[in-house]
Amino acid sequence: MSAHPRLSMNQATIKHASLDDALRVTAEGGYASIGLWREPVLEVGLAESARRLADSGLRLSTYCRGGFFTMPEGPDRRASIDDNRRGIDETATLAAAGAPGSTPVFVLVAGGLPDGSSDLVGARSRVADALAELAPHAASAGVTLAIEPLHPMYASDRAVVSTLGQALDLAEPFAPEVVGVTVDTFHVWWDPDVLAQIARAGASGRIATYQVCDWATPLAADVLLSRHEPGDGVIDFASLTAAVEATGYDRDIEVEIFNQEIWDAAWPDVVERTARAFGAAVAPHLRAPA
Amino acid sequence: MSAHPRLSMNQATIKHASLDDALRVTAEGGYASIGLWREPVLEVGLAESARRLADSGLRLSTYCRGGFFTMPEGPDRRASIDDNRRGIDETATLAAAGAPGSTPVFVLVAGGLPDGSSDLVGARSRVADALAELAPHAASAGVTLAIEPLHPMYASDRAVVSTLGQALDLAEPFAPEVVGVTVDTFHVWWDPDVLAQIARAGASGRIATYQVCDWATPLAADVLLSRHEPGDGVIDFASLTAAVEATGYDRDIEVEIFNQEIWDAAWPDVVERTARAFGAAVAPHLRAPA
Repeated sequence: MSAHPRLSMNQATIKHASLDDALRVTAEGGYASIGLWREPVLEVGLAESARRLADSGLRLSTYCRGGFFTMPEGPDRRASIDDNRRGIDETATLAAAGAPGSTPVFVLVAGGLPDGSSDLVGARSRVADALAELAPHAASAGVTLAIEPLHPMYASDRAVVSTLGQALDLAEPFAPEVVGVTVDTFHVWWDPDVLAQIARAGASGRIATYQVCDWATPLAADVLLSRHEPGDGVIDFASLTAAVEATGYDRDIEVEIFNQEIWDAAWPDVVERTARAFGAAVAPHLRAPA
Repeated sequence: MSAHPRLSMNQATIKHASLDDALRVTAEGGYASIGLWREPVLEVGLAESARRLADSGLRLSTYCRGGFFTMPEGPDRRASIDDNRRGIDETATLAAAGAPGSTPVFVLVAGGLPDGSSDLVGARSRVADALAELAPHAASAGVTLAIEPLHPMYASDRAVVSTLGQALDLAEPFAPEVVGVTVDTFHVWWDPDVLAQIARAGASGRIATYQVCDWATPLAADVLLSRHEPGDGVIDFASLTAAVEATGYDRDIEVEIFNQEIWDAAWPDVVERTARAFGAAVAPHLRAPA
């Protein structure tokens, strides 16, 4: 089988696969790249995961994920910052083990409002504080922190960062190779300002990763699981992808899907179906490979 | 019973009440104002509804709702525009029949993407076209069209207008007494730019109505029904209400809730519970009544 040379399988799309299974079905599916998640990596151990990634011949496109640092100062916040430092180190190790073209990108989801709090402004300011605390560590590890704005329906419980513009405002105090943004079509497609903000992100060199999946209604009862294969919903991948390409972004593009039906399917089928969906809905809007 | 003098019961909160029942329980609950919906009004007939509203002694705060005009030109679009013209006329009739202080505000929800379409930009431009077509009729009827940005989770199937800033951009070509905006806390609370956009709306005299209800997770399986009484969720009513008040907005404030549990409750209980919730979560942030 073959897949588009820039397509990367985000491991969440085959959530129940172990690291070994994920690497194997992705490589067998003709992909050249994978986005890994911390839990399955740490289950195997970092050094062993790095060896297996190297053996797979795949590039690493991102490592998912850190963040969740909206809580006020205290032991929970210290634990989160420490955990994010470890995540940064893991990203560096894995990216070094991946095939050439691997990118040391650590995806960050901000976290929601602390329990019982309505202080969105305060939670957001603590995201800025956390970035300031983590940036030196990321810089010395050569890792890019990729703040991911999540759809506003997750603003209270998962991510107080809701728009690309807001993520870029948070990134701006830092060098672009240290703090960038994740552009995920599912989260940003609705934004009236999205094309301008993609251009802004590109102009400042801050598109750390581009992720694609589709939006369809009715939303799943658990709205976290409402993501679909590109082309199975209403997102205009032509305009979004063209806007990302126009910035000069030329790295891997992940398909990251949380969807019970897809999680329940056989992994090789998902890998194949995803390559087909990407080929039909996204690839036509990419520059021809060099 | 008594309720805050600026509190208005939006009829959707007691969705299954007939017009008569809604007017009666709202007045008996000590409210001075009500926001009516078209379906129960038209069930009784417009002239008869106007008489009953007059008899109730209540003000009309808004009339809900029109819009749904994102479809391309053709018979469906003509039917929608005609229906919106009738809604404008109904608004004028009802506001004239309501107690002094009634406001002829017709709330507009844009509508989602037409079936099979991914053209968000086109759908949005057709909203602008519809406003241009309806504005002269609204102006001559003395009615304010109140564009309601809906939460981005409804962008594909209910409203391609997702932010207050976008609604204000759409309103700007028209006089503020002809095209304004609806500020509904549930839809805008997450927006990093919301306070600035409320100030902008106020500066241009475009806050046609302020509606309050709360956001809590997990969202209902039908995300339309995820609205809660003020104080039962995470929205910061202090900052939003203070921002609206700071613009000089001094008219009625509606509580509009779609929630199965509330719809299943006895109407007088809902009316009382809503007055209490408003008194605790919103009223402390209002100027003292003159």
